[in-house]
Amino acid sequence: MQEKLQTPLIIVNFKTYSEATGNKAVELAKKAEKVSFETKVSIAVAPQFTDITNVAKAVNIPVFAQHIDSIQSGSHTGHVLAEAVKEAGAAGTLINHSERQLKLSDIDMIIKITREKSLVSVVCANNPTISAAVAALKPDILAIEPPELIGTGIPVSKAKPEVVTDTIELVREINQKVIILCGAGISHRKDVAAALRLGTQGVLVASGIVKAKDPYIVIREFAEATRI
Amino acid sequence: MQEKLQTPLIIVNFKTYSEATGNKAVELAKKAEKVSFETKVSIAVAPQFTDITNVAKAVNIPVFAQHIDSIQSGSHTGHVLAEAVKEAGAAGTLINHSERQLKLSDIDMIIKITREKSLVSVVCANNPTISAAVAALKPDILAIEPPELIGTGIPVSKAKPEVVTDTIELVREINQKVIILCGAGISHRKDVAAALRLGTQGVLVASGIVKAKDPYIVIREFAEATRI
Amino acid sequence: MQEKLQTPLIIVNFKTYSEATGNKAVELAKKAEKVSFETKVSIAVAPQFTDITNVAKAVNIPVFAQHIDSIQSGSHTGHVLAEAVKEAGAAGTLINHSERQLKLSDIDMIIKITREKSLVSVVCANNPTISAAVAALKPDILAIEPPELIGTGIPVSKAKPEVVTDTIELVREINQKVIILCGAGISHRKDVAAALRLGTQGVLVASGIVKAKDPYIVIREFAEATRI
Amino acid sequence: MQEKLQTPLIIVNFKTYSEATGNKAVELAKKAEKVSFETKVSIAVAPQFTDITNVAKAVNIPVFAQHIDSIQSGSHTGHVLAEAVKEAGAAGTLINHSERQLKLSDIDMIIKITREKSLVSVVCANNPTISAAVAALKPDILAIEPPELIGTGIPVSKAKPEVVTDTIELVREINQKVIILCGAGISHRKDVAAALRLGTQGVLVASGIVKAKDPYIVIREFAEATRI
Repeated sequence: MQEKLQTPLIIVNFKTYSEATGNKAVELAKKAEKVSFETKVSIAVAPQFTDITNVAKAVNIPVFAQHIDSIQSGSHTGHVLAEAVKEAGAAGTLINHSERQLKLSDIDMIIKITREKSLVSVVCANNPTISAAVAALKPDILAIEPPELIGTGIPVSKAKPEVVTDTIELVREINQKVIILCGAGISHRKDVAAALRLGTQGVLVASGIVKAKDPYIVIREFAEATRI
Repeated sequence: MQEKLQTPLIIVNFKTYSEATGNKAVELAKKAEKVSFETKVSIAVAPQFTDITNVAKAVNIPVFAQHIDSIQSGSHTGHVLAEAVKEAGAAGTLINHSERQLKLSDIDMIIKITREKSLVSVVCANNPTISAAVAALKPDILAIEPPELIGTGIPVSKAKPEVVTDTIELVREINQKVIILCGAGISHRKDVAAALRLGTQGVLVASGIVKAKDPYIVIREFAEATRI
Repeated sequence: MQEKLQTPLIIVNFKTYSEATGNKAVELAKKAEKVSFETKVSIAVAPQFTDITNVAKAVNIPVFAQHIDSIQSGSHTGHVLAEAVKEAGAAGTLINHSERQLKLSDIDMIIKITREKSLVSVVCANNPTISAAVAALKPDILAIEPPELIGTGIPVSKAKPEVVTDTIELVREINQKVIILCGAGISHRKDVAAALRLGTQGVLVASGIVKAKDPYIVIREFAEATRI
Repeated sequence: MQEKLQTPLIIVNFKTYSEATGNKAVELAKKAEKVSFETKVSIAVAPQFTDITNVAKAVNIPVFAQHIDSIQSGSHTGHVLAEAVKEAGAAGTLINHSERQLKLSDIDMIIKITREKSLVSVVCANNPTISAAVAALKPDILAIEPPELIGTGIPVSKAKPEVVTDTIELVREINQKVIILCGAGISHRKDVAAALRLGTQGVLVASGIVKAKDPYIVIREFAEATRI
């Protein structure tokens, strides 16, 4: 499903922030769409499950789920079905975010399910060896997010540039095709530029945008930083 | 939040059945609403997270989530937030369904969250002692569902009537207020009647309705059976 | 299995502290045994799985496992079998410690397994409502441990005496027989005395003893405090 | 830690079988040791946690834990500490057995812990892509065990020889050093021979030996089959 995606790519993870729940999710997604249209930079949003329908109806940029379960349709009360997020309008899904870590066998199964259902798979990984393992599972996108930096405002590209470069090296030995994003702590335009300079193809961001005083301005800055 | 609810009550759990996903979830909910309006029997539906928004917009009967997580708004990627299901239109949520079993401390926390957010809590329990334990947590509704009967078409009220009567007895020693529903294997109108005769105040059903050739007819039969 | 147990009772949880691993577990257990013999106060120890055999061989006081799984013998690689801890010499097991929280249905199942295998069940609970729920499952012993106090040196009997008294009241409405212990933050003899004065029948302690400069002296003080 | 291990290697997983619990674990381990001494074939045993001490004392062949947790010493009640299994006499541990599946990040962490503590890591994997992912984490040993064959008596080398050969190929692209074992359904000497012929360096077996009428004879047959 990589053909759906242009790089550089910015994915905005709405998490379960109150600033990005319900109507506010739609508003925030519209700002991301506006920047994407203005700058021609590829921007996607990952709202909560309950907001996918309204967000996908409101905007014309890719919408991602934040998680799906390794299930097929059937008796799975309270689980998240690939078909359901797709019918709601999702183009893909985050998988194994550090706040929603999964068993190895479930990551493998979910990637296979996304492939069957033509959904884009974005698998998160915490360190170079985990990233290499994920690369072997052949997802569409791999996002490197050291959990100790998430939400700190310290970008991995700055605090641990070697995590990024080591990861790219290890991953490319195993998988030449996967798109590599950099996450965790991205809060300034220069973090975005640094992430790309280190060799990644985009960023996965959350609080830096969702909790910004003016999210439109920050998204716009990030988008512009991808073109430098 | 019990004041929101009339008994006898029928809750239809859509699970992740393909027959109740996306547009089909809305169609099925409309049939439940039609019967509720025609018969004045209280009927609620529990679609998947991604379908709550559209279902709640389409019908004027209570909509339940199938699960929520024991979290507050914040950094919880891939989790289900009480506020989010509420803003999407849910009146309450299933908790601890046998297909989505939870830690005891999470059940306790989620019930407290539903109370804060004015959501109805429907906690599932597998046997008499677990039901007694749940009763001590003071949810609004307790649904007894022996997992070995789920989806079998053999109603607990028939296969194990003593599970129902024992449970009611144990539960009432601890909690006089909780509404008690009977689940698992309900597939005929007489199962519904039997469940009420044993002393429960309604039923939690899934495949018996969702996978019926004509769900409208089955819901209608079930609703009428509650009035006998 | 309560007949095996005299109250007041002190249970020393060795956790996975290096000070209580391997030979050090045996040494610490011998100190507990010495105090128990000298003071005639009932003291039990809960070492790691791998240490149960040697500890149970070395001492003549009750030895508890820190956890068992809700399984029967069979294909359960990496799980902890009731028969196995019993054959190793355990008299019972902790269940649902706040560091090893379990699904409600597993707690229920494990209590039933301990009953079948004549093992003493010690179920931990974090707050009054959870304690009430646990009481309904009829374990032999209930240990109240607010997780926010564990390891702090602030005893629940001091920081939150109302947690103790509320719990006792709620629990006794449901279960008159269960032995109630007080845990979390117990580090001085006066904490032990306070716990008993509030109406509990003993204490569950860990770091206060395991990490003490001279564990023998602290155990001895605690034992003496139970007799005041 | 691979230097500790000679190949071909047979690992006997005792699971939580009653036939291999307590004293029976020691008896079974002695039979494995006897065959190992007689045939000079490398044989290891993986008893339950509680049996490691006695088994390791009784025999002079490698003893493995069936699981360890991704923890350091400290406040981890009910968990399994690397140091503890090592001090009990274990030379290594199984990790991520299909009956005890782990999060990807925990597998990575546990492998790192085994490396620090000089324990041999044996990571189980269910299919070729998962095996490739595990190979990227650089464990000492990788055991391929399709869960649908475990306990069936149908060896993966027969039912799914391509699983074995595909896995070896994928794994060797990523990791030339890891020892590859074949598991699941091994019950005849010819299964062992087939597994080695397909290119693996040994087998991981359980019920085929533990539940055999005469385990000594079966272990002996398996050991001899490795030399053909």
